[in-house]
Amino acid sequence: MKFNIALLAGDGIGPEVIDQAVKVSDAVAKKFGHEITWKPALTGAAAIDAVGDPYPDATHEICKNADAVLFGAIGHPKYDNDPSAPVRPEQGLLKMRKKLGLFANVRPTFTFPSLIDKSPLKRERIEGTDLVFLRELTGGIYFGEKGRRDGGETAFDNCVYTRAEVQRLAKKGFELAMTRSKKLCCVDKANVMETSRLWRETVQAMEKDYPEVTVSYEFVDAVAMRLVQWPNSYDVLITENLFGDILTDEASVISGSMGLMPSASMGADIALFEPIHGSYPQATGKNIANPMATVLSAAMMFETAFNLPEEGQAIRDAVNKALSEGIVTEDLADKGKAYGTKEVGDWLAANI
Amino acid sequence: MKFNIALLAGDGIGPEVIDQAVKVSDAVAKKFGHEITWKPALTGAAAIDAVGDPYPDATHEICKNADAVLFGAIGHPKYDNDPSAPVRPEQGLLKMRKKLGLFANVRPTFTFPSLIDKSPLKRERIEGTDLVFLRELTGGIYFGEKGRRDGGETAFDNCVYTRAEVQRLAKKGFELAMTRSKKLCCVDKANVMETSRLWRETVQAMEKDYPEVTVSYEFVDAVAMRLVQWPNSYDVLITENLFGDILTDEASVISGSMGLMPSASMGADIALFEPIHGSYPQATGKNIANPMATVLSAAMMFETAFNLPEEGQAIRDAVNKALSEGIVTEDLADKGKAYGTKEVGDWLAANI
Ligand SMILES: CC(C)[C@H](C(=O)O)[C@@H](O)C(=O)O
Ligand SMILES: CC(C)[C@H](C(=O)O)[C@@H](O)C(=O)O
Repeated sequence: MKFNIALLAGDGIGPEVIDQAVKVSDAVAKKFGHEITWKPALTGAAAIDAVGDPYPDATHEICKNADAVLFGAIGHPKYDNDPSAPVRPEQGLLKMRKKLGLFANVRPTFTFPSLIDKSPLKRERIEGTDLVFLRELTGGIYFGEKGRRDGGETAFDNCVYTRAEVQRLAKKGFELAMTRSKKLCCVDKANVMETSRLWRETVQAMEKDYPEVTVSYEFVDAVAMRLVQWPNSYDVLITENLFGDILTDEASVISGSMGLMPSASMGADIALFEPIHGSYPQATGKNIANPMATVLSAAMMFETAFNLPEEGQAIRDAVNKALSEGIVTEDLADKGKAYGTKEVGDWLAANI
Repeated sequence: MKFNIALLAGDGIGPEVIDQAVKVSDAVAKKFGHEITWKPALTGAAAIDAVGDPYPDATHEICKNADAVLFGAIGHPKYDNDPSAPVRPEQGLLKMRKKLGLFANVRPTFTFPSLIDKSPLKRERIEGTDLVFLRELTGGIYFGEKGRRDGGETAFDNCVYTRAEVQRLAKKGFELAMTRSKKLCCVDKANVMETSRLWRETVQAMEKDYPEVTVSYEFVDAVAMRLVQWPNSYDVLITENLFGDILTDEASVISGSMGLMPSASMGADIALFEPIHGSYPQATGKNIANPMATVLSAAMMFETAFNLPEEGQAIRDAVNKALSEGIVTEDLADKGKAYGTKEVGDWLAANI
């Protein structure tokens, strides 16, 4: 098969980790007889510097016409202390999500047996953890009307959801639950928020279409607790944009394998794959960043966007082998030797 | 001294744990020569059942005229699966906060050496944890306009903050930081929300009035992570209502001592003290609920509302003694004997 993949390296360590994912994907393509054409495009601070826009139209054209998007990370320290700067890298992220219609962010959290002791949580609390968040990504308070009144003294942000938006996301949740343990948790704040009550009633009405799925409804504050107490009691969780932002980040640290966690953002026509970690400016250019989350995001891309599970598995096998043989970057190299970003990528590509 | 204390037992285990706090407070009053008049009043499901309102006017009158409010817990399972029921116990809570002007919720999280191994987190991660959240409690998305449009198909919730609301809360944060390690963290989502940008610019402008305080600004998603990774890196944290709801609950489970965590909600004229745990319906009437969080809330009341630190310390000493001698309820009685709610209360009162 032939694929066009938009390649958005972004800022910080983005380009370095993306390079490794490209190498590994090319090795997979070679092995299985596919042909990948990479279409690099600018985004983030790199795009602001070049053309004054963190998600330029040219980049959007490339993404729209690609079969999938592989994304590194964006964000640059020069914008960090000025959240009200007129143009910021994160705006590129939000614009991209909205313009590509990436409404469902899929965030698995699972443990790697060899890394379990890196977790801040006790082993017995996290063993067997294997959960997936589906976070709504193009609605809610992120995209509602916001602004100032009273000469700047009053600020407001509007959180808005339509039933159709909830249904679209919840459908993916029910479908995912059907392929797993048939357990779905709807996370909301229905005791306070009207949008949450819409979420809850919409999901409740869909239950009859998936009689095999057991649905639970939990408040976001209770989930924030239980994620730390018993993460392995969850399977598929669906939630709105802001709750998802907070809870998926919380969940990402429980496994101890944050540097390995991939994610996908799915739209009706296109999907984007990216590591959950950020642009990690301090590590930029040092050849020390862990490329595995980006490499595993490429695995998700083969599996989800191209429906090629064997290709994805080949990548996962290589990563597991690297972990058990200690071919890892310094974040995971406890006592052993630490390998460079590039060297880990080379090893993975050679072991496909 | 003479005090009138409004006593809101509420639902579930509320009445049982409140009884113990009353007993212990009376013992303190006796020892130090104070006189407490308790003013019981209805709230929560109990108040809905009695008069159809979870925070009746009569209760408000009693609270308004008291020197402090001691609160148990509210919530009843008959409302749990119907978040859109016309009258719900939680509405009483919100109404009470708003009408009493309780704008600052103070939530300490600390470890008890003897309980540290109950935490889901590893000992080395939580040792020394001693942080305080100041959560804004009468603004934000909880109290903004909310409703439906398009025949119910679209729901919205408005998050609103004024500069004055932020200043009022932040002032308490700076003052608290001055009495502690002089470290303040402002938690927001200023890369997305306009209200957060108002929070951030307001706190930034106040920095010059507290030159000794080191202020950091972190995004809510990053804090949700770091709370699990390095809770002991935080000291005083200030944040808006909804973020505070989520993060304080997350923080409450890291110490392993959730059943012991007290809280205070401060207004300009009155303050309310309550355990952070809920009404725990399954345990109701069984004499098994842990009364210590409510007893420690009474300690906070003496310290904060009445400015009587020795009286508060007497309560804390009794609780520490009970913990080290194993006079605890079943949630804390690992191998040893479990005592009843009432027996723990009696023991604490006798040991003041
Ligand atoms: C950078 C920021 C706007 C973004 C978000 O809040 O969605 C990030 O935290 C994420 O989760 O991808
Ligand atoms: C019951 C609910 C409305 C309340 C809140 O969200 O404030 C509770 O979770 C709390 O934190 O006191």
